[in-house]
Amino acid sequence: VNRIKAIVYGVGAMGRLMTRLMVQKGVDIVGAIDTDPEIVGKDLGAVAGLGRDLNVRVEENAETVLSRRSADIAVVAVASFIEEMQEILAMCATNGKNAISTSEELFYSWTSSPDLTSELDEIAKRNGVSITGCGYQDAYWVNLISVLSGTSHTIDSVVGTGMWNVDDYGPMVAKDAHVGETTDEFLTFIKEQGWPPSFGRNSLESLIADLGLSVAEMQEGTEPETADVDLRCESLDMTVPAGRVIGYTDVVDIRTHQGPTFTMRMIGRLLREGESDINEWIIHGEPEIQLRNEKVQTRTTTCTQMVNRIPDVIAAEPGYVTVERLPKLKYRAYPLHWYLRP
Amino acid sequence: VNRIKAIVYGVGAMGRLMTRLMVQKGVDIVGAIDTDPEIVGKDLGAVAGLGRDLNVRVEENAETVLSRRSADIAVVAVASFIEEMQEILAMCATNGKNAISTSEELFYSWTSSPDLTSELDEIAKRNGVSITGCGYQDAYWVNLISVLSGTSHTIDSVVGTGMWNVDDYGPMVAKDAHVGETTDEFLTFIKEQGWPPSFGRNSLESLIADLGLSVAEMQEGTEPETADVDLRCESLDMTVPAGRVIGYTDVVDIRTHQGPTFTMRMIGRLLREGESDINEWIIHGEPEIQLRNEKVQTRTTTCTQMVNRIPDVIAAEPGYVTVERLPKLKYRAYPLHWYLRP
Repeated sequence: VNRIKAIVYGVGAMGRLMTRLMVQKGVDIVGAIDTDPEIVGKDLGAVAGLGRDLNVRVEENAETVLSRRSADIAVVAVASFIEEMQEILAMCATNGKNAISTSEELFYSWTSSPDLTSELDEIAKRNGVSITGCGYQDAYWVNLISVLSGTSHTIDSVVGTGMWNVDDYGPMVAKDAHVGETTDEFLTFIKEQGWPPSFGRNSLESLIADLGLSVAEMQEGTEPETADVDLRCESLDMTVPAGRVIGYTDVVDIRTHQGPTFTMRMIGRLLREGESDINEWIIHGEPEIQLRNEKVQTRTTTCTQMVNRIPDVIAAEPGYVTVERLPKLKYRAYPLHWYLRP
Repeated sequence: VNRIKAIVYGVGAMGRLMTRLMVQKGVDIVGAIDTDPEIVGKDLGAVAGLGRDLNVRVEENAETVLSRRSADIAVVAVASFIEEMQEILAMCATNGKNAISTSEELFYSWTSSPDLTSELDEIAKRNGVSITGCGYQDAYWVNLISVLSGTSHTIDSVVGTGMWNVDDYGPMVAKDAHVGETTDEFLTFIKEQGWPPSFGRNSLESLIADLGLSVAEMQEGTEPETADVDLRCESLDMTVPAGRVIGYTDVVDIRTHQGPTFTMRMIGRLLREGESDINEWIIHGEPEIQLRNEKVQTRTTTCTQMVNRIPDVIAAEPGYVTVERLPKLKYRAYPLHWYLRP
C-alpha cells in the first residue's frame, strides 16, 4: 500500500492544523486550495507554521488543483452548510477525489437538506468516491454515546449537553452570539431575522441512525444565556454587565418512532472562572448512565478525528457515507496508509 | 431469522438478572444449570423473580442440559479465572453451543493463560462455535477508551481509574479486601499468601490489542487503602476505625513496544459519604483527553452488556473471540434475534 496523497481544501485555522497532523502521520500533501490573498502563492508548510516548506503552493483555482493532481482524498474545511459545500464537494467527486469535510450539516444531512444530499450521494457514487462529514461530533456526540448505549437495557431518553466558550473564536463569533446585548434585543433579533438551525440536530440524527431508530418528530429552540455577575469578553474587548446576554443555548428535541427521546443542548457562552468546555450525556432508562468529558478541546479534536478518519473514508463504499456507517473510530499509532487494506 | 435460544449456565445474582433481561429482549431460555441445592429443581422464572414460570427447571447436570437442548448460546456466569472455566466452556463448545462468559480473565486471556486459551480456541474452532468473555469492561474499560483515543493525535500514556464499593458484594468480598485489618496485617498477608492477579491487566490487553499496539513489559502491584475517618462497613457489620484498611488498589502498568504506556488503577474500598463507583480515564498526549462516568452500575451494566453482545457472539467467527474483535457495542432496541443476519 502506498502513502496517502491528500489535497488540503481550505487553509484556514483548521486546514493549517490538519496539515501538520497529516504530515506527522505520513500523508503526502499534494495540493492546497484557498482564496485568501494573504496566503495564495505561499508554501503550505510556511502557512501552516511547520517551519519548513512542503513544496506545495496554496492555489486559488480549485478545479485546476483537483483535476491535475493525483490524490486519494480532499480534506475540506470551508463552510458549515451543505448549500455552501455542494459545488466544492461535487468538484472533488467529479475529479475522482474522496472527500472528508468539517461541514457540520454534512455530518448527517439526509433530512436537513434531502435534495442536495441525494444529489451529492449520486455524484459520489457515479464517480466511485465517498464523501463524509466529520469532526468533533464523531466521537463526542455519536460514537461515545453509541457505545455507552450498549450498556443500557432500556432507554427512555438521551440528553446531551455541550458547552463551548463563545470567546474562543474571535469577535465575529462573539458578535453572532449577541454577547453584550439585552435579552430583549436578542429575542427581537430572532423574531425578526430568524436563527440558523442547530447542528446538534445533525449529530442526533446520526446517533439515532446508529442505534437503528428513526425520527418521528423534531423541535428546535434557542434561548439567550445571561449571568448574574459581570463577565469579561476578550474577543470583543468588553465587560458584559450582569443580566446582559453572554451567549445562547440551542436545544433540539427528537422523539423516535420506537419510543426513546433525544435532546441536545448546545450552550455557547462566556465561561465563568473555573469553567471549561464540557461534553456531558445522560441516558435515562435501565440503568441510568452518565458520561462527562471536561476541558474538551473542540477545535483540536475536530482536526484529529478528521485526520484519523482519512483511511476509513478512502476505504468506504462510494457515496455519501455518514460516520455511523464507518468502522469504529480509533487511534492511529502508525502512518495512515498502514490502515488501508492492500 | 428465528428467536434466539439460550441456556443460562450459573443462576446466581448475575444469571438471574440476565435471565430477566434476555426474556425482555425476546430470547427463549431453554435450559438453566446450577449446583446450588437451594434452587435445583425450581423453575428459573421463580428463581429469577420474574413473577411467572418460564417452564425451565434449574438442573444440576450440565452435560445433560447442554447435550439434549438445542440452543444458540450458553450465557455463563460461574467463575473468574479461566482455569475454573475451562471445563465448562469446553463442554459448551463440544455440545455445539456458542458461549459468552462473565469470567474476568477470559476477557482477554491470551497472555495471562496462553496454553489454556489456545486450547479453548482450538476446541471452539473444531466445533464451529465462538467463546467470548464480556462484562463491565467491554464498554467502560475498552470500547469507550478506544473511541476516545480516536480523538488523539499522539498518545503518551493512558491512565484509567475504576473505583467500586467493596461493601456492595456481601461479607466474603469485604473480608477478601481485608477490611478492618491493619495495614501491617494486609501487607504481611500479601507477602505470605500472595495476591490474585488484577483483571485490569486483561482489560488493558484488550484495549492495547484494539489500538494495534503490543505489550513490551508489564508490572503489577497492590496497596492497602485507608481512611482518616471512621467508616461503616455494612456487610461486615462493623465500623472501621480511621487508619485501618478499608480496601485496596490494584495497579497494572504496561509499556507497549510502540511507546504509549497504559496504567489501570482498580480501587475497591469502602466509600465515603457522597462517593460513588466511578470510571475515569485520562489520555495524555496531543491533546489531553478526559472521560468520566459517575455512579456507574458495575453489576447491572455487566449484565446488560453480556445480553446486548449475544447477537455478536452468535455471529462471530468460530474460536475464542475477544470483544475488541466484535462489532461496536450498541443498544438493542429490538428483540435480539433482529440483530442476526438471515
